[in-house]
Amino acid sequence: MLKEAVYHRPKNNYAYAYDKETIHIRLHTKKDDVKKVSLIHGDPYDWNKGEWQTQRAEMKKTGSDDLFDYWFASIQPLYRRLRYSFLLEDETEQTVYTEKGFYEKVPVEGIDYHFCFPFLNPIDAFEAPNWVKETIWYQIFPERFANGDPSLDPEGTVVWGSKDPTPTNFFGGDFQGVIDHLDYLEELGVNGIYFTPIFKAHSNHKYDTIDYMEIDPQFGDKKTFRKLISKCHDRGIRVMLDAVFNHSGYYFEPFQDVIEKGTESKYAQWFHLKENKVVTEPLPNYDAFGFVPSMPKLNTEDPEVKAYLLKVARYWIEEFDIDGWRLDVANEVDHAFWREFRHTVKEAKPDAYILGEIWHDSMPWLQGDQFDAVMNYPFTNAVVDFFAKKNITLSHFKNQLTHVQHMYPESVNEVSFNLLDSHDTPRVLTYAKGDKKAAKLMYLFQLSYSGTPCIYYGDEIGMTGGEDPGCRKCMVWEEQDQDLELFAFIKKMIKLRKTAPAFGNDGEFSFVDYGDELLAYEKISETQSMIFLINPTTEAYDLRFEENIKQVVDVDEDSNMKDHNIHLAPSGFIILERR
Amino acid sequence: MLKEAVYHRPKNNYAYAYDKETIHIRLHTKKDDVKKVSLIHGDPYDWNKGEWQTQRAEMKKTGSDDLFDYWFASIQPLYRRLRYSFLLEDETEQTVYTEKGFYEKVPVEGIDYHFCFPFLNPIDAFEAPNWVKETIWYQIFPERFANGDPSLDPEGTVVWGSKDPTPTNFFGGDFQGVIDHLDYLEELGVNGIYFTPIFKAHSNHKYDTIDYMEIDPQFGDKKTFRKLISKCHDRGIRVMLDAVFNHSGYYFEPFQDVIEKGTESKYAQWFHLKENKVVTEPLPNYDAFGFVPSMPKLNTEDPEVKAYLLKVARYWIEEFDIDGWRLDVANEVDHAFWREFRHTVKEAKPDAYILGEIWHDSMPWLQGDQFDAVMNYPFTNAVVDFFAKKNITLSHFKNQLTHVQHMYPESVNEVSFNLLDSHDTPRVLTYAKGDKKAAKLMYLFQLSYSGTPCIYYGDEIGMTGGEDPGCRKCMVWEEQDQDLELFAFIKKMIKLRKTAPAFGNDGEFSFVDYGDELLAYEKISETQSMIFLINPTTEAYDLRFEENIKQVVDVDEDSNMKDHNIHLAPSGFIILERR
Repeated sequence: MLKEAVYHRPKNNYAYAYDKETIHIRLHTKKDDVKKVSLIHGDPYDWNKGEWQTQRAEMKKTGSDDLFDYWFASIQPLYRRLRYSFLLEDETEQTVYTEKGFYEKVPVEGIDYHFCFPFLNPIDAFEAPNWVKETIWYQIFPERFANGDPSLDPEGTVVWGSKDPTPTNFFGGDFQGVIDHLDYLEELGVNGIYFTPIFKAHSNHKYDTIDYMEIDPQFGDKKTFRKLISKCHDRGIRVMLDAVFNHSGYYFEPFQDVIEKGTESKYAQWFHLKENKVVTEPLPNYDAFGFVPSMPKLNTEDPEVKAYLLKVARYWIEEFDIDGWRLDVANEVDHAFWREFRHTVKEAKPDAYILGEIWHDSMPWLQGDQFDAVMNYPFTNAVVDFFAKKNITLSHFKNQLTHVQHMYPESVNEVSFNLLDSHDTPRVLTYAKGDKKAAKLMYLFQLSYSGTPCIYYGDEIGMTGGEDPGCRKCMVWEEQDQDLELFAFIKKMIKLRKTAPAFGNDGEFSFVDYGDELLAYEKISETQSMIFLINPTTEAYDLRFEENIKQVVDVDEDSNMKDHNIHLAPSGFIILERR
Repeated sequence: MLKEAVYHRPKNNYAYAYDKETIHIRLHTKKDDVKKVSLIHGDPYDWNKGEWQTQRAEMKKTGSDDLFDYWFASIQPLYRRLRYSFLLEDETEQTVYTEKGFYEKVPVEGIDYHFCFPFLNPIDAFEAPNWVKETIWYQIFPERFANGDPSLDPEGTVVWGSKDPTPTNFFGGDFQGVIDHLDYLEELGVNGIYFTPIFKAHSNHKYDTIDYMEIDPQFGDKKTFRKLISKCHDRGIRVMLDAVFNHSGYYFEPFQDVIEKGTESKYAQWFHLKENKVVTEPLPNYDAFGFVPSMPKLNTEDPEVKAYLLKVARYWIEEFDIDGWRLDVANEVDHAFWREFRHTVKEAKPDAYILGEIWHDSMPWLQGDQFDAVMNYPFTNAVVDFFAKKNITLSHFKNQLTHVQHMYPESVNEVSFNLLDSHDTPRVLTYAKGDKKAAKLMYLFQLSYSGTPCIYYGDEIGMTGGEDPGCRKCMVWEEQDQDLELFAFIKKMIKLRKTAPAFGNDGEFSFVDYGDELLAYEKISETQSMIFLINPTTEAYDLRFEENIKQVVDVDEDSNMKDHNIHLAPSGFIILERR
């Protein structure tokens, strides 16, 4: 056995409190190297005649990526305390992996050998709002969704959809536009809206805030916003806002004061000035988002800044009853601030959702003390690469997904914000070079996967667009220009997610191996067992399925099942249920 | 190259803010597998024509354990942001290790490939008090150090040292006794005292608190305690108290109320009751320390308990100016409590030291938001096993120590509480089966190592004793019964630690290889380079040393250097300095 490949360390995705009674333990070993892993565990204080008393639980292999096999056990220790080691076996040898290294036998003469999960204190357990698991999000970039009140249009507003978006033009999208189209969203079936920023700002994207306590006048006023929230809530739609707390905008009053007075400004400590006076060219002489002069980084360690931003966080919850905050550039703000932020937000609304924008491995933010979830771009990348760009193999795709699944605790995966695209990426159909069948497979996969899926406005009717600003086109409202067939497909998938127990978060996901060409996975809930067969290739694929199954719903008319014979068209799929 | 053995993950001992400007990056690879590792790094926002702009820094191999080589680089990124990957080379191949896996070349077309240290926010950096690095601790178990005021003796007090200690007998040690012997401590050279609990309690060890706001009457009153602190401070000696916050004692008033009233008690929420009434036999029906009925676990999630304990933490600092808290059974208390505790303590005294009692891997508590250090028992175990029990080989010892060094950030190691024994273990000389030469080598090693060393009362004069209660004998004050030679030796080592720059924390520690028998290590500071040669065997050892060196101090009379010829007696050693 390859000892160098064996890895475990407590208090992250390898050992965590799943709930107030349950500890999950994971281990990885070299792929195909170990036949059986047992968790040797016990209460640290349970001794008899100088020997530590242990129990044994067989660990389950929950997946493999290109290098490793992942092993899993779930334990509910009677006294909420756990010490443990791992017994690894293959056909010829066995070894025990402990915190102190490898041993031939389980060392029961001392407790120090063993890994420790000292006590399951409920307050430390990761706990996200329950409703998030049942939510299908719809991301709205308000300037581009619908113009419902032309009287608010900023000067120079371009006729809706008459031009391509540029970094600076305006089309007049607003809250009334959203209110006008809530029927549309309800028909699609989404039950959560994530709005990119809505506070008073300079740009069309509003990520350069002028005033965190005011609605941008082009979107409406607080009265209209209150109406929007209330109408959403009436329909069971939650609303999440974008908190741009890493940096302010150039025209944020405190920064304007600093521009005027330099380090003499009473707001000097609100930013990270490196010299007495503000200089913006060629590079800002203050910390900024990237090197963007109009986005000066806020000093979130400063007590005044902290108090101000926490007031903002509380205000929009308490006054407008919003349901969550998405945190822009969340990884560049200090952890200490986010801990206080969580405290404030959960005090104001215990089941508010806190979603961080982090594109990389985010374990340090997902320990229970900061965020409920992050935007799961590692998921996005794998799905886009495989289905749309087609630049990775099936096995690479499965490896990547399995890796992402094991990167976080299960409790984190259940509320992970799984997006296919956003205002920061090309659109799904553009990624897929217009291949609608590929796009459909992506939605099928996203919507039948775990976590909480998000659809970027307009994708559902076949909108295209490349990198910013291309992906920020005006929503198409003329039915003749909408892809209604795609809309119907996504609507059907959303309905399945809501109604078939195994399709959504209640179904435990696992890949099934049907060779190198067919993507197959199971979703198994307590009451239902579903099998998904996807043919991502350009050739038809036929197979015989001996199990007692039925087809769940006929969504891909080119693929079908007759008796036990399954025919999958190119880019075809079929959803089966075990009887 | 063995990819399965390559490991890195940010925001722990593998990537951390060393100070407000510096990020340390570590990596491990299979032992002797990789010849060269380079860190490929850059600012995440520094792009030129679609290509990420990178720099390259060669990583240094800082040690090896039985399975892995550890690599290190220190970076001060201009904008405090860092993305990075690793270029691994051996004689025939090279590979690039990224967050997304292994690649043939550095992927510069997308930032998502690379590991991320998003922003160095000072508030998140681990920062322990500076004075701790210069401190040599002395642990006092107050009931057994000295009886200075017999009028305080509890009923049934046994004549000092006339009997062996039992779990329940009393000998009358008190604060006046400590005050009376401050000259002694100053002569030894220690400049920090860690007192095991001093608050009103039932037992002789006082780990079963009755009142956290009162001094135990057998030790004196608050006036005497104030005098003790002030006299310590006058001599430059810091004082650390023991905070037993995981559990109270049986006679703690709130628990007594719960015993009386069960779940009707207003203190019911202070503990973890599982039934309406308290039952202690055969097992407590409430959470306890281990299964000890007299130590009911406190519910540190309860706001009242939290407020009470934080008041205690603040009180003894603000009213008595203590310098640190050692936290008993720290790993079983919730992280959320410790974060608030840190906030409270540092607000009351910014340079107070927070030391957790944790015997296992403690990374989750040492991220900067909770403790400044833990009791470094993994260090203890390695030193005791090698020098005293002699049950591990030299190479195993070096592997263990190297492993412990790389288990934590450097900033953590610098203030790590390195003990050889305590009130919870046998004494050094007993571990060593009376082999004084072995004991001396242990002190030499401990006192010339990094971190902050602690001597358990009486070890310095040759006291013996096994597991509790054996290790809690009365301090021997009659000079004829003290091992004055051992005292003089330890005193000399302490003096060297204080005066020779490389001997203490300013010296960077590294093992040097002189074969399988000789333990050799260097300590190198900016101004001094020392070499320690230790012969842990029972045979003399001779070697020739070609460098231009001198002997630092002649402490081991049986070992010596003549010209370049070094003679090491069995269990002998020599300390050299490069000229």
